[in-house]
Amino acid sequence: MQIDIQFVPSPPDSNLLSNRGVVVIDVLRATSVMVHALSEGAIEIIPVATVEEALQRVKTFPSGTTLLGGERGSRKIEGFDLGNSPKEYIADRVRGKRLILTTTNGTKAFHFVSSGEEIMVGSFFNIGAIAERCFELNRDLFLFPSGDKGNFSLEDTVCGGMLIDLIIKRGKKPIALTDASHAAHILYQRFEGNLLEAFHLSHHGRELIDLGLGDDLLYCARTNITNIVPIFKKGVIK
Amino acid sequence: MQIDIQFVPSPPDSNLLSNRGVVVIDVLRATSVMVHALSEGAIEIIPVATVEEALQRVKTFPSGTTLLGGERGSRKIEGFDLGNSPKEYIADRVRGKRLILTTTNGTKAFHFVSSGEEIMVGSFFNIGAIAERCFELNRDLFLFPSGDKGNFSLEDTVCGGMLIDLIIKRGKKPIALTDASHAAHILYQRFEGNLLEAFHLSHHGRELIDLGLGDDLLYCARTNITNIVPIFKKGVIK
Repeated sequence: MQIDIQFVPSPPDSNLLSNRGVVVIDVLRATSVMVHALSEGAIEIIPVATVEEALQRVKTFPSGTTLLGGERGSRKIEGFDLGNSPKEYIADRVRGKRLILTTTNGTKAFHFVSSGEEIMVGSFFNIGAIAERCFELNRDLFLFPSGDKGNFSLEDTVCGGMLIDLIIKRGKKPIALTDASHAAHILYQRFEGNLLEAFHLSHHGRELIDLGLGDDLLYCARTNITNIVPIFKKGVIK
Repeated sequence: MQIDIQFVPSPPDSNLLSNRGVVVIDVLRATSVMVHALSEGAIEIIPVATVEEALQRVKTFPSGTTLLGGERGSRKIEGFDLGNSPKEYIADRVRGKRLILTTTNGTKAFHFVSSGEEIMVGSFFNIGAIAERCFELNRDLFLFPSGDKGNFSLEDTVCGGMLIDLIIKRGKKPIALTDASHAAHILYQRFEGNLLEAFHLSHHGRELIDLGLGDDLLYCARTNITNIVPIFKKGVIK
């Protein structure tokens, strides 16, 4: 098994994706929201790139079945039901509901990698389950940190590095790493046992703290609180 | 002072470069060759993107003044005077000569960043002198590892991370790091005291070993063997 990771969130060469398992990671906060919402009983999530698209899509579903969630500038969008904090996506709000989600980085990422063989939604919340699923899948992997407004994101890469670490430790066969996946693994090792430190160094982590959303960092650094592995297929995550 | 580093060698947004000092890094081996050749008395180096361009440019200079150097597939190019090992670029061969150089990654990189305020040629050979020059320059910095065929390169990033480390340790004022430059710094710290280990993990390092060029890795891992800071300006490095 070979594991690659793309550091900058642009659409990858589709040759890199064919036959690979893909893991999309946006720890702060889109994929954390997705994993949390589904673990709390949301039935499915439709990630869309723009606010306009979200407002159009919601009209196509029966009233009362579907919630709008997401952020711009890390803040809840006007007229939306929910923002982008995983703590909002609890059973009382989301159980039995469909969610339409639009965020700055994470929701776009799914569309960039849509030609992958199986596209998983990764976060610290479900990192162990993702590692298990990667093993079952037994394919080469392509990790896709969704970045920070087109730039490299430290916290997403550290999460990718933790996945690499889990796969290496669990595996009996050697895992082939690229320069990038070696680097992600080393970055994880630096923050092992203190993921919050990585969040505090990262640009987006500091942005959230400045906006008074520091509690979300603590929340998103929790590992293995669920065993679900959401899959993105034909535009829908479930 | 802020330090950014671009992990994937594509032409950067020119806004990112204006008013910045830029350091191009291709440790294995283009910038190591350049620094070595100039420290051994070559008068200037013209980096060009293609073999054809190299063959055209050499005709524009008086016979006997100019040597052709570089590689394709890490091997010397047919009809060229020199390959891409810094060990070839010694005073006996290069003193008083102009060099026209074309390599797979490094020579292209200079053209990508040509709008920078001052474009320095960095390698482990002159890393301390580069750090000093960055201090004198007192501008924001943009580090440009030239990568491995368009991909992230571990060894170039580790070299960038060493530069960041030297600047942080020398400075009295705090240095602002991006997520990427934090990551490069952490990667350097992992290999501090054993740069060769980074070369051995890297894809291009292993490629050179497989081609019987492992001695070049040991050679290129030497730090601070010269104090020169070559500058790329108007298409020429001197």
